[in-house]
Formats: sequence, structure tokens, C-alpha cells
Amino acid sequence: MSNGDIFVGEIIGTAILILFGAGVCAAVTLRYSKARASGWVVIAFGWGFGVLAGAYTAAPLSGGHLNPAVTIGIAVDTGKWDKVWVYLLGQVAGAMLGAVLTYLVYFAQFQANVREKDSAEEPTPTLGIFSTIPEIRNPVANLVTEIIATIALVLPILAFGLTKGLGESGTTVLIVSLLVVGIGLSLGGPTGYAINPARDLGPRIVHAFLPIPNKGTSDWGYAWIPVVGPLIGGALAGLIYNAAF
Amino acid sequence: MSNGDIFVGEIIGTAILILFGAGVCAAVTLRYSKARASGWVVIAFGWGFGVLAGAYTAAPLSGGHLNPAVTIGIAVDTGKWDKVWVYLLGQVAGAMLGAVLTYLVYFAQFQANVREKDSAEEPTPTLGIFSTIPEIRNPVANLVTEIIATIALVLPILAFGLTKGLGESGTTVLIVSLLVVGIGLSLGGPTGYAINPARDLGPRIVHAFLPIPNKGTSDWGYAWIPVVGPLIGGALAGLIYNAAF
Amino acid sequence: MSNGDIFVGEIIGTAILILFGAGVCAAVTLRYSKARASGWVVIAFGWGFGVLAGAYTAAPLSGGHLNPAVTIGIAVDTGKWDKVWVYLLGQVAGAMLGAVLTYLVYFAQFQANVREKDSAEEPTPTLGIFSTIPEIRNPVANLVTEIIATIALVLPILAFGLTKGLGESGTTVLIVSLLVVGIGLSLGGPTGYAINPARDLGPRIVHAFLPIPNKGTSDWGYAWIPVVGPLIGGALAGLIYNAAF
Amino acid sequence: MSNGDIFVGEIIGTAILILFGAGVCAAVTLRYSKARASGWVVIAFGWGFGVLAGAYTAAPLSGGHLNPAVTIGIAVDTGKWDKVWVYLLGQVAGAMLGAVLTYLVYFAQFQANVREKDSAEEPTPTLGIFSTIPEIRNPVANLVTEIIATIALVLPILAFGLTKGLGESGTTVLIVSLLVVGIGLSLGGPTGYAINPARDLGPRIVHAFLPIPNKGTSDWGYAWIPVVGPLIGGALAGLIYNAAF
Repeated sequence: MSNGDIFVGEIIGTAILILFGAGVCAAVTLRYSKARASGWVVIAFGWGFGVLAGAYTAAPLSGGHLNPAVTIGIAVDTGKWDKVWVYLLGQVAGAMLGAVLTYLVYFAQFQANVREKDSAEEPTPTLGIFSTIPEIRNPVANLVTEIIATIALVLPILAFGLTKGLGESGTTVLIVSLLVVGIGLSLGGPTGYAINPARDLGPRIVHAFLPIPNKGTSDWGYAWIPVVGPLIGGALAGLIYNAAF
Repeated sequence: MSNGDIFVGEIIGTAILILFGAGVCAAVTLRYSKARASGWVVIAFGWGFGVLAGAYTAAPLSGGHLNPAVTIGIAVDTGKWDKVWVYLLGQVAGAMLGAVLTYLVYFAQFQANVREKDSAEEPTPTLGIFSTIPEIRNPVANLVTEIIATIALVLPILAFGLTKGLGESGTTVLIVSLLVVGIGLSLGGPTGYAINPARDLGPRIVHAFLPIPNKGTSDWGYAWIPVVGPLIGGALAGLIYNAAF
Repeated sequence: MSNGDIFVGEIIGTAILILFGAGVCAAVTLRYSKARASGWVVIAFGWGFGVLAGAYTAAPLSGGHLNPAVTIGIAVDTGKWDKVWVYLLGQVAGAMLGAVLTYLVYFAQFQANVREKDSAEEPTPTLGIFSTIPEIRNPVANLVTEIIATIALVLPILAFGLTKGLGESGTTVLIVSLLVVGIGLSLGGPTGYAINPARDLGPRIVHAFLPIPNKGTSDWGYAWIPVVGPLIGGALAGLIYNAAF
Repeated sequence: MSNGDIFVGEIIGTAILILFGAGVCAAVTLRYSKARASGWVVIAFGWGFGVLAGAYTAAPLSGGHLNPAVTIGIAVDTGKWDKVWVYLLGQVAGAMLGAVLTYLVYFAQFQANVREKDSAEEPTPTLGIFSTIPEIRNPVANLVTEIIATIALVLPILAFGLTKGLGESGTTVLIVSLLVVGIGLSLGGPTGYAINPARDLGPRIVHAFLPIPNKGTSDWGYAWIPVVGPLIGGALAGLIYNAAF
């Protein structure tokens, strides 16, 4: 694959991933959304099918990583690092584009996120639509959560290629997307499962700059954990895979 | 494929799509339905599995577009426009047939949609079972939502054919149906995700003519948005696909 | 396939289908169940994955019909009627066996379905665990609902064999099971979607004979509708398929 | 496959299974989890996608049994018992490792599981995150539930290999994982569906030793049922399969 194809593929694929992922968080969080308060199962399936949509679309151009932790895990496993920077640039740019698209899809909802006259309901904080926020703020515990959850993503992805009858088949992306649903359901409780540095950092940058009413803090003090944790997790998954398989 | 096969295939397939889609909206909305108030996850999966049922059934006859936005997107990409009118006619006719079938399946529930004696519960407005209604009425924002959501449908569909091992496989329709579940979960919040002009227009016509008790308005003032938005989105998806892939 | 293989396959497969289907109704309905009151989405996926489990298990022996409406639909389409009676006998026997197994799985829950001391909570009627009950009792409307819902099941099943890349593939049963989830979500509201005469009649016979505390009526006055409706629907699907494809 | 590959594969695969399964129970149960109280559908899909993640990862090394009942069922069917002890050791060790990983992912949540000042909310008992607890304590009924539910797992798994087009395909694990979702939805109500001796015993040992605040009892009086029941069920499934197929 050419650098251009990789870059375009990762931008489009990651933009679609974030459009679905940030989209489902907006759908469940914002007032005047038909999916308001529809629960965690909706969040987890929304993100998972975002992977399905984004990775299938990007697959013919870039292979559809959409996640620096996946790119790093593959690089640690294969020892090939020369294209990594193209993937990472595309992923962060795509994540930013996806966050802007989500903002446009939910534009009227964001504009209506104000304290209404004679209403006791406060505007909803908006950062959780774009980036992850831990339930309990504990840097070491949060980092460990993100590391283990990312290993649970990247190690299976590396192993899938070896499964009989799955190697080159189009079913692989479907299975990865259900894997991501599973990670959301099972491991998303403490930190909201970034498991992808681009997924968290790109939309956080967009959140900081967009003119969203009552948007609240962009919480830059936490921003390093969903970047560093998944990068460590992806690298560890590559090492475990090399040792065990 | 012959024009006759295309026409019959799109009628049957789109009728099944709307039977499931309008059906699930009836199931969740109407009193005396076992699925009443079962939430957005049920809506999104019901529509998605309607695509699965309709597109697999129509596939051997017409390829199973079921959606003018998909047909337009493919035409923009391939430059072949001669069969487009057959697809569109079949899709609108099928959507009208599907709406009538849904009315028959929920006939007793529609008849019971009256103000009961000594009850404070008003009859349920019925348009939302047939066609989309925006949460916030804002033509520009609603149009943008439908355009982006339709791109998120048609661009992946165009790209799926290029994915290794997926090209001609029967798994493609399964993946498209999960993609539609994802669009519902993530992007359906503001407008109820028409993303298909036939899906919205056909049932709206049927709603206007059927003798449903307390049916409320057919809201023709909004009707152009779920037609124009998805058509623009489908065409844009074809253009993006041509440029990027 | 030999008559013996068909009979054994349909018994085992239909027993598994009913074990999952009646099981999920017990799970959602009965007190002291971890899944109590978990909603319609659980019902629909439980029945759908019952089809998955039963049909994959029966497939190598009998092809895994598990449903007289499917068997009739295929017979109308192909004109081959000589094995139909073996399928039907196996399906009803299997449905009865599955209902007994469900009773055993939830034995302690059924025994605890009594009015507790100092409690205002009445015992739960148990027929809905075994067989279908309409929300609104209207024979013509209920029959129409079952006919259309069964066409929506059998017509796609007949067409799936023609879909490119799906013909003989193991993915077909997976898709049929998701189709059944969709029918449950979308068309199950009015009558609880029997769409299968054996599924309703077999467990109703078992319900009439089993010594279940506070079991309530077996409602034989309604029993003909979920038998006759699906048989008509299956035959109509065969006719439509022959005409259109 | 070498003994070493089997042992490593079963450890990694079962650890991933328990990480997802115990993880989703923690996610739904513990305070300060984003998935708190999100219901039985989340539990069932979390465990099912744990099977997906673990079995696909382990498949190239050990075939991905992850469950002594599956291993015993295959041994009863094939008559080959020489590798069984390697599978069982790996499964129990992996289940213990997975329980420790879950504890680390939810470390801050476990630490916060204390009676808060001025709060009437008691700490949550934690055993249900690690191992199964029956709703009604009735050894015979609980044992019967686990036996039947395990037959419903192992008999289809044995039959899947015979299904046309499914034999060696990578789709098999996907179907098994949806089968496990179905068992959870339908048959999990009475006992919480261990259906796997390692899944229950390994985490129970870890629960007994880990320094979890307010962890409550490890309930060793019940521990034999989710071990003995699934072993009987797995062996019966092997016998039924040999007789019927």
C-alpha cells in the first residue's frame, strides 16, 4: 500500500469510527435525542458497529487499523516500523474529522444544551461525548485498566490471522467489531474504554476548539492516560503474541 | 438483470424492509403491544434486521438496493443511470406495500388507539410509526444530519466490494444490516434516520390515506428533508468513493 | 436423508429451539430468575439464538426445519410432499420434549410461583412461558398477524438459497436466526409471534398436563390460530416464491 | 498440537474469557461503573463475546476449548483422553489468571466498595462477580439446571463440525459465541449458568484469597454444583451425540 492510500484510508476509516462512537455518546447523552438514556448496551454496540463501518471501509486502502495501539502492536510483532507514522497521522486527523462530523449531526442538540427557562435541569457536560472520563480518578488504576483492556483488544486481533479459515476472510472485521462490543460491555466500566489514543486525543482537541454552548472542561489533566495506556497495552500485546504464538 | 426482475425484487425487498421497520416502531409505540416501551436498542436492531431480511430476499432478483440513496450512489460511481428509474419505482411502491402490511399486522392495536373511558392517556400519534419526525425542527440542521448519516451508509456499502474476501460473499448483506443498526444507534438521535427517501415518502403517503383512528398529521411540511437529504448524501458518497478509492 | 435421521434431527433441533425459547420466557417472567423483567430485546434474541442452536445442531441430520410452516413452504415450492409427515411428527414431539426440559431447568422457580405469606404479589400465570397469548383477542386480526409474520419468515428462507455466495454456506443458519430476532422485535407485538405451529401446540399440550403450581388456563380456545395462521403463511410464502423468483 | 501449545493456548484463552465474563459482572454490579445496572442483556452478551475473544485467540494453539465440559464431551465422543489433563490444567489456571486481571481492571471500584459516610447503601457482595450463585438454593434442581444448560452448549458444538460449509470455517467460533449468549439469556435465570467448571472454580479460589474489601463469603458449600453439573452435562452431550449422529 502507498503512503497516500494508507493516509486516506486511515482518515476516512477513523472519521467513520468516531462519527459512530461520538455519535452514540451524543445520542444517549443529549436532550432532544430519540436515543436519550437508552443505556450502556447502546453505547457498546454503537462503538462496535463504528469499528465495523470504519474498518471495512478503510480495509482496501490501509488495512483498517484506525487505532495507534493496533498499529504499534503489529509493528512490535513484525518489526516493521517505517509506515507507522503515516498510520498515526491519519488516525489522529481522522478522529478530529469524525468529531467535527458528530458535532454537525447533533448541531441542533448541542445548541439546545442550555438551561431552559423555569427548568431545574442543568446543561449536560459535553466532554463525555468526545473523550473518556474515568468514574474514579486514580491515575495508576486508570492506566492499568486501559493497558489491560487494550491488550484484550490487540492480542486477539494479532491471533485472528492464525485462526483456520479466518486468515484472509472478510469475516475478520465483523469479529473484531463484536470484540470491541465485548470490551465495551465488560471492561468499559471504570474509564469508558479509550483503548485507542487517537479516539481520545483527536476528539478532545476538537472539543477544546469548537464553540459548543456550556461545553465544560476538556480535562487536559487526564488526557495523557488514554494515550499512554493504550500505547503500552498495544506494545505489550505484540510482545505477548511474539512469545506465545 | 431484467427490468421485471429488478422491479419485483425491489418491491418485495423494500416491502419486507418497511414491514420490519415500521413494524418495530409500532411494536415499541402502540398500547397493547408486547414490545411497548422497549427502547431505542429494539428500534435500531428491528430496522437493521429488516435490511437483512429484505436485502437477502431481493438480492437474487435485483441486488437488493431497497434505497434510492444506494441506487444513486452506485450510479454516480459507475456512471450507469439507465436502470435507476426501475429501482426507484420499485422502492417507492414496495415501501407503500410494506406500510400497508404493517397496518394489517398491527390492525387491532391501531383500532385500540383511542381515548379509553375514564383514562387520562391520550391516543398515541401514529406518524412516527410510518415516517420520521425530527426532535428539533431545524431544516438546515436536519438536512445536514440526514446527509452525513446517508454518507455513513452508502460510502461503506460502496467500499465493501473491495474488501478482501468479502467481494461476492453472502456475508456482505449481514454486514450492511449491522451497519444500519449502527447508524440507528449512533446517528438516529436528531431526525430518526430516514437515510432512504423511499422509506420515508412511501409510508407517509400510506399514512395520509389509511383510515387510522386518531392518526394525527402526516406532516407534509417536513417531508422534503428525508427525501432530499438522503439523495444528496448518496450522491456525495459516490463522489467521495470515486475520489478516494 | 433417511426418515430416521429426519425424525431424530427434528426432535433434537426443535427441542433445543423450545428449550431456549420457552426458557427465555421463563427467565424474563418468573420470580427468582436473574433475568426477570429484562425486556423484549431479551425475548427476541433468546428465541433467535434458539433457532441458531437448534438448526445448526439438526442441520446435518434433517436440514433443520424445526417448523411445519417452513416444511410446508418448501413442499409447496418443490412439490415434494412425501417426507412432510416425518418432519411434522418430529417437530411436535421435539417441541413437547423442549417444553419438558424448560420445566426442569426452571423447576425451583415454578415451585416457588405461589402467593407468599404477607405478600400482595399474585402468582404469575405460566401459559405465556409455553405458548403465545394475543394482547388483543381478535381472531381475524390475530390470524392476519400470524400469516404475514410467517410469510416474513418463510419467503426470505426460500430466497436465501439463491443469494450469491450463500447457497450452501454455513452462514445461512446464522442469518435465519437473526431474521427470527427481527421478526420478534418487529412483528411480535400483537400475538407474541408463534410463526410455527409446533412451537405453540407442543408446549401447550405439555402445559396442560404438567403439574405446575398456579399454572392457570391452557387457553385452548386460542390454540387454533397459531397453528392455522403459520400453516397458511408458509403455504403462501411458497406460492409467492414460485411466482416471483 | 504439542502439550505446551495446548497449555499456553488454554491459559490465554480462558483468561480472556474470564476477563470479559467476570468483567461484565463487575461492570453491571459495582458502584462507580459506567455500565452499572445495565441489565441481563449486557451480562449475556458480555460472556458470549468473551467466548468469541478467548476462543479465537486460543484456536491456533489449542483449538480453544476453554471449558472442561467441552473437553470431556469431545473425549467421550472421540475416545481420546490422553490430552485431557493438559486442557483442564490450562483452563483452571487461565480462569484464575482472568479473575486476577478483572480485579486489576476494576481495582478502584473494588476499593470503593465500602459503606460511605452518611450513606444507607451497603457494600455490594462481590462473589457474584467471580462465581455463580443460585437464585433458589436447591441442590437437585440447581444440578439439573446446570446439566441441561451444559448439554445445550456441548451438543451443538459437537454437531457444528458436521454442518455443511461450517466444518473448518472461522465462522464456527462466532456461532458458538452467539450460542453462549443464547444460553445466558434463556437458561441463566436459575443458577447464573456456570456451564463450565473452570469458569466457576478458578475465580472462586481467587475470590477466597484476594484482599477485596467487604468481599463477603466465597460460598464453598455451593461450589461443587457448578463443577459436577457441567462435567455430567458435557459427558451426556458426548453420549447423545454418539448415539444420534
